[in-house]
Amino acid sequence: MTTTGRQLTSTLTADNTMVLELEEKTFPQPTGNQVLVKMEAAPINPSDLFLMTTGADLQMAEYSPGKVVMPVAPQVAAGQAARKGKPQKVGNEGAGEVIAAGEGEMAQALLGQRVACVPGSAFSEYAIADAMMCLPLGDHTSEEGASSFVNPMTALGFAETAKREGHSAIIHAAAASNLGQMLNRICQEDGLGLVNIVRKEEQAQLLKDQGAAHVVNSSDGDFEKKLAEAVGATGAFLGFDPIGGGQTTDTCLRAMERVAAKEMTEYSRYGSNKQKKMYIYGRLELAPTILTPSYGFSWTVSGWLLMPFLESCDMQTMMALRQRVQQGLKTTFASSYKTRVDLEGMLTKDAMMDYAQMSTGEKYLVTPHG
Amino acid sequence: MTTTGRQLTSTLTADNTMVLELEEKTFPQPTGNQVLVKMEAAPINPSDLFLMTTGADLQMAEYSPGKVVMPVAPQVAAGQAARKGKPQKVGNEGAGEVIAAGEGEMAQALLGQRVACVPGSAFSEYAIADAMMCLPLGDHTSEEGASSFVNPMTALGFAETAKREGHSAIIHAAAASNLGQMLNRICQEDGLGLVNIVRKEEQAQLLKDQGAAHVVNSSDGDFEKKLAEAVGATGAFLGFDPIGGGQTTDTCLRAMERVAAKEMTEYSRYGSNKQKKMYIYGRLELAPTILTPSYGFSWTVSGWLLMPFLESCDMQTMMALRQRVQQGLKTTFASSYKTRVDLEGMLTKDAMMDYAQMSTGEKYLVTPHG
Repeated sequence: MTTTGRQLTSTLTADNTMVLELEEKTFPQPTGNQVLVKMEAAPINPSDLFLMTTGADLQMAEYSPGKVVMPVAPQVAAGQAARKGKPQKVGNEGAGEVIAAGEGEMAQALLGQRVACVPGSAFSEYAIADAMMCLPLGDHTSEEGASSFVNPMTALGFAETAKREGHSAIIHAAAASNLGQMLNRICQEDGLGLVNIVRKEEQAQLLKDQGAAHVVNSSDGDFEKKLAEAVGATGAFLGFDPIGGGQTTDTCLRAMERVAAKEMTEYSRYGSNKQKKMYIYGRLELAPTILTPSYGFSWTVSGWLLMPFLESCDMQTMMALRQRVQQGLKTTFASSYKTRVDLEGMLTKDAMMDYAQMSTGEKYLVTPHG
Repeated sequence: MTTTGRQLTSTLTADNTMVLELEEKTFPQPTGNQVLVKMEAAPINPSDLFLMTTGADLQMAEYSPGKVVMPVAPQVAAGQAARKGKPQKVGNEGAGEVIAAGEGEMAQALLGQRVACVPGSAFSEYAIADAMMCLPLGDHTSEEGASSFVNPMTALGFAETAKREGHSAIIHAAAASNLGQMLNRICQEDGLGLVNIVRKEEQAQLLKDQGAAHVVNSSDGDFEKKLAEAVGATGAFLGFDPIGGGQTTDTCLRAMERVAAKEMTEYSRYGSNKQKKMYIYGRLELAPTILTPSYGFSWTVSGWLLMPFLESCDMQTMMALRQRVQQGLKTTFASSYKTRVDLEGMLTKDAMMDYAQMSTGEKYLVTPHG
């Protein structure tokens, strides 16, 4: 039995053009522990947009039904030279019904069930997924389960990383995001201190309404002072930054040093001994990361990715994390969407100009079968 | 018994002026495990200059015998606000004769001996030092032993750090320095791969003459290609950067990624999985560190300092490192000096304009008693 349906691919051409295109594709019978999922819902996450719109000029693009052709800034295209000419599947995660399964036991057990999955090709009518990575949704709808992997596991990963490294509080930048709201709930449940950085007053209010104790607004004139106060109050010497470019990470390290310096009895040319650490886990800004020489030498900046984190977990931890997500799909890990679009709808100018901004609280959900 | 002599201090005033001044001081009888050392030789290291000349306008300074008054750039002074109005002693290390000792056993054992020491106030006729940190020089002269702590221990610390973190090769920037030459010898002795980055042809030749297998010149047109080739040949995914500001660290990470990307079978938006790490151990450039989004998320940049490293060593390792330095003072850890100056001589315009450039191979040695 074969199944056919439309799938979105993103191709960067040799002449620096990005082509997003729906293609009719034949999906093979799954084998081993693979399952074939009829995709019903898939969120458009910032991590998906990296392959779809980074450096692309959406205003100058040519839009036709099921196809978008965009010029890409040469310096950005150069950074992605390795993918030129190779069509990339897109859509990290989603949910749908398992309509075929390989002969493996785990795959067979999912046949006929509604699952959340991480196929890497979720913007498609059908997708082959790894049964090991599928989460059975039980009575939940595909919309409720569509975002049950990337953001929940990442937010839980931050809390787990903090605990592993001996921290009892963290800073989170761009904290009003879907992910940030989950992290806010997780930290309250786990008794972890959290300093939320937002850039708008309504985002601050949103998080406070959800119980956040420390929210600082980077648009405020006394932002750096307030940030240092919150770091002092919580003891947050570890932070997570999805912006990456510019000075967010630097600003957090400076705030940490400001707090650490107060404990010093005498001046040291090398800054405080207090270890300060920031993880960059996204690139909402593609500009270079700027680190000023303002916090001595006791600091670390490092990349953070979900997959290596998950690989670092033992099976017991993984199962505990999955179970926690499953039980909290309507509470801790609930996602909300601004708009629903089908596969053609996600390739219109209006939609793309909108979701490419990655505005807080304005996430799109793709429903491939309408 | 009290001893009097001249000592150099550096004071940053409230109005952003740096004052270097020789002051007549009384040195108390040492107690416990302290010793009083008649300082005979002390090198001027980059780490000393941080307290003496950072951000200072040496051209506009007022020079008088034993005193220099320099205007300091406001933004640099702001970064050192914590030291304003507090005279700082200067001179990390040096060597001389122990002329008095506390009642402690270790101190008493050093009485009358010539030692290398780390008083933090080595630019002085006399200095109180910790006997625990003194290295008896035996038949070596004070000049031979003056630089036996900072550079040797730092170079050994890099090799030790690499081994601890599971690396068999490292990159070193500004590699023709006194420290870099030691590291070059250590890596050959220990069988560690070393990629030396220099910026002049004569520096490259110097290291090659000392047996270096991989030297790349950042002034060459094909520098980045050559750097990647050397990283590929050695497998150096760890590096040490004394420059700090600008893009040296970024350039090293890009070279590492270029090598790692060749092993990838398919494109990943997140870059290679290969962990890449750079330690910044100095700030020869005070400009911000620039990290471009060119090497995915599997990277770490961190500060490296000698003192925390030494604190992380157990006693056995410490003793082994010290013994290695002692045995190699005329070989592996030999230092050379361009010029000798006394305490007044180090405060002349000609001398300061010269050593503040921190040019490779042009180190000054201070001989406080002439």
